[in-house]
Amino acid sequence: MSKPLLAGIEAGGTKFVCAVGYSPVDILKEIRFPTTTPEETMTRAYDFFKECQEEYGPIASLGIGSFGPVDLDRRSKTYGYITSTPKVRWAGTDIVGFFKSRMDVPIGFDTDTGAAALGEGRYGAGRGCDTFLYLTIGTGVGGGVVVDNKALHGLVHPEVGHIRLVPREDDTFQGTCPFHGTCLEGMAAGPAIQERWGKPGIELPEDHPAWDLEAYYLAQGLAAMVLTLSPQRIIMGGGVMHQPQIFPALRRYLKEFLNGYVDRPEITEEREDYIVFPERENQAGITGALLLAQDQLGAVQ
Amino acid sequence: MSKPLLAGIEAGGTKFVCAVGYSPVDILKEIRFPTTTPEETMTRAYDFFKECQEEYGPIASLGIGSFGPVDLDRRSKTYGYITSTPKVRWAGTDIVGFFKSRMDVPIGFDTDTGAAALGEGRYGAGRGCDTFLYLTIGTGVGGGVVVDNKALHGLVHPEVGHIRLVPREDDTFQGTCPFHGTCLEGMAAGPAIQERWGKPGIELPEDHPAWDLEAYYLAQGLAAMVLTLSPQRIIMGGGVMHQPQIFPALRRYLKEFLNGYVDRPEITEEREDYIVFPERENQAGITGALLLAQDQLGAVQ
Ligand SMILES: Nc1ncnc2c1ncn2[C@@H]1O[C@H](COP(=O)(O)OP(=O)(O)O)[C@@H](O)[C@H]1O
Ligand SMILES: Nc1ncnc2c1ncn2[C@@H]1O[C@H](COP(=O)(O)OP(=O)(O)O)[C@@H](O)[C@H]1O
Ligand SMILES: [Zn+2]
Ligand SMILES: [Zn+2]
Repeated sequence: MSKPLLAGIEAGGTKFVCAVGYSPVDILKEIRFPTTTPEETMTRAYDFFKECQEEYGPIASLGIGSFGPVDLDRRSKTYGYITSTPKVRWAGTDIVGFFKSRMDVPIGFDTDTGAAALGEGRYGAGRGCDTFLYLTIGTGVGGGVVVDNKALHGLVHPEVGHIRLVPREDDTFQGTCPFHGTCLEGMAAGPAIQERWGKPGIELPEDHPAWDLEAYYLAQGLAAMVLTLSPQRIIMGGGVMHQPQIFPALRRYLKEFLNGYVDRPEITEEREDYIVFPERENQAGITGALLLAQDQLGAVQ
Repeated sequence: MSKPLLAGIEAGGTKFVCAVGYSPVDILKEIRFPTTTPEETMTRAYDFFKECQEEYGPIASLGIGSFGPVDLDRRSKTYGYITSTPKVRWAGTDIVGFFKSRMDVPIGFDTDTGAAALGEGRYGAGRGCDTFLYLTIGTGVGGGVVVDNKALHGLVHPEVGHIRLVPREDDTFQGTCPFHGTCLEGMAAGPAIQERWGKPGIELPEDHPAWDLEAYYLAQGLAAMVLTLSPQRIIMGGGVMHQPQIFPALRRYLKEFLNGYVDRPEITEEREDYIVFPERENQAGITGALLLAQDQLGAVQ
């Protein structure tokens, strides 16, 4: 008997990645295209899977990791929807329903960062951790939490990007978040850097004061997350984290803010293997989506 | 065959509770006494268990929920110790070792709030929740997190009392926490109320401005926890929460701080069953300790 064919979608706010494979790390075919309207983008994904079925035979299950907020509550009427997203055209889109009505296979569903966290957990920097945190610092600040190989959901799902920060005395920037102003995303995501300093992060030199301030704010958010979750590792990716000078400053500030209260060498010795860059950077999301597909087969068999 | 006899210790900073029973809620005998020196207090607990064995036969397992910080890492040399506690005489006490060398039964070990959270989860206000938060606001601010019926540990264990707050404009109090000044515990635990207003909370009238400020700070901490963990319920006990007027103000401020971002009726409609008082108040800790004992038998059998 041949292995079941898995399909995955990493549904991002800027681009979609779709893939099929016999395992989450044995991808046969992958496609990436920009996110436009829901109808056009989802149809393009569906057309890709139709093609794949002609080439490789029937798809056994689908996993979707989607930008959000999304409704992950299986008892809810809007389960599988993208809900109150600022990307207006996508608010209220029944993404799971779209594929369910066309493909009739079991569908696993999570947030984009939840899926990426699962991918990094199984095949990347989260290996061996029971509890870890995965963050992306890009156009927004998003995060996924994994506990015992499952993405944590609870009431909805973590939204660590919106933790409130204490602005540093020398920073008068009001923050970009329409909900909270000076929350983590409002102060430290890519657009906040661009607005505060007048140009995008990528154009600022490595020794620009922007990076120390960036580490200061990220570490404030991390301190709250460490005190709430006690992660065994913190994986930080996204465009902004391509500035490697942020990492040492981040470890220093996290230690300073916790001030000895969490008395572990990971923090007090500013260990380099505690706050780390992802190992599977651009693949974590789609790997996680395929893991969600694989989980569905476990549940069904 | 008779049921195995369980023993439990709720080791608090002010008092110890010890009990034996055939189930966590079928207690045969219980004793409460003040916490003095480690030697004297632990010996008193051990003497109680010896007596119980004479009366009821051999104890099958022991569960300990201890004040801390404690070392919960089974691979660590100081597993089962109370570590860097501000209660100086207890720093470095091998509490699991003390009982292990005398009783030769399997011992389950967790924080006091972790144990209490488990007790509330199984038999109290946390029933039916996959992910919930249990907090006590008393001499300190402590918390336990339960995910899928297990107390969350990770790197150490949650220490939500030390989340940094933004002081309210009209409050110049510097906070009581020796580590962080204006963290949640430093601004909102019982001693902070007493120092800020010149008398203990219990002597302040119900309409005193202390309670609105208290709710303001507690809600700030809760907002960070909700964004990180997404709990399905928040259970809040401890001396300070005996002021029932805190609850409605807390729900109002939590909604205000999240400002629509976590778009769930539990928060936006300020639901009374989202932030709740414990159901098993004074019994949650010892019930949880007995659950830890029971878990040991599952693991051993
Ligand atoms: N090398 C870099 N250094 C600093 N900022 C960067 C860098 N690359 C991208 N960014 C910023 O990150 C944001 C884009 O994040 P990215 O993770 O690439 O995409 P998205 O979050 O949209 O998926 C933009 O605000 C951009 O300015
Ligand atoms: N009814 C009350 N109203 C307000 N504060 C109270 C009340 N009862 C106790 N406290 C305060 O709570 C703290 C004691 O907390 P408690 O939970 O009883 O014990 P502990 O935290 O030491 O186990 C003290 O600071 C006390 O002033
Ligand atoms: Zn925000
Ligand atoms: Zn503190």
